[in-house]
Amino acid sequence: MDPQPFIQLNKVIHEKGRLAIVSMLAASPNLSFSEIRDVLQMTDGNLTAHIRTLKQAGYVAVTKSISKRRSLTTYALTGDGQTAFDEYLRNLEAILGQTRTPAGGKEEFH
Amino acid sequence: MDPQPFIQLNKVIHEKGRLAIVSMLAASPNLSFSEIRDVLQMTDGNLTAHIRTLKQAGYVAVTKSISKRRSLTTYALTGDGQTAFDEYLRNLEAILGQTRTPAGGKEEFH
Repeated sequence: MDPQPFIQLNKVIHEKGRLAIVSMLAASPNLSFSEIRDVLQMTDGNLTAHIRTLKQAGYVAVTKSISKRRSLTTYALTGDGQTAFDEYLRNLEAILGQTRTPAGGKEEFH
Repeated sequence: MDPQPFIQLNKVIHEKGRLAIVSMLAASPNLSFSEIRDVLQMTDGNLTAHIRTLKQAGYVAVTKSISKRRSLTTYALTGDGQTAFDEYLRNLEAILGQTRTPAGGKEEFH
């Protein structure tokens, strides 16, 4: 087994809550807090903490605007975030490729 | 986006060190501590902690035997461990299936 895809898994993205957030933002830019929270069934506190971590890593950018006299905050993946997510997905595919041994065959390591 | 595959990711298995250990044991039963440690480039302390967590979850069994007058400890995935790993892989494949949008197409959530 090649350990590299496991070792290289990006811990910021790998956490399952953040993986879900990044997956949503990769598919649909500029989502609001409540859109993310409602789809992922997260608490406000959980989502706030995950977004803080993603911002600190430089993976998510925040945009504040005014829409119909109400302030609107939206979140989007940055270029760095997209790059990191693409690399993460490549590692995940490599891991799945390794675990799918044909017909339950047993592989030897030594 | 369907949040269920993310929500259902098994946290015991999802941690990247434990994911690597479980992947090794799924492919090759009865590995020794040093075999796992060396392939995964882990410290003794790290591997010990991860194996403790996997044992507590009932996913890994320990066998102690005597070989050439030396005691030998080996680790294997239990039936519960294999079942949990299979379910984990199904969720991971569902996640990858969702993130592979054709030709970088943008999907709308709302």
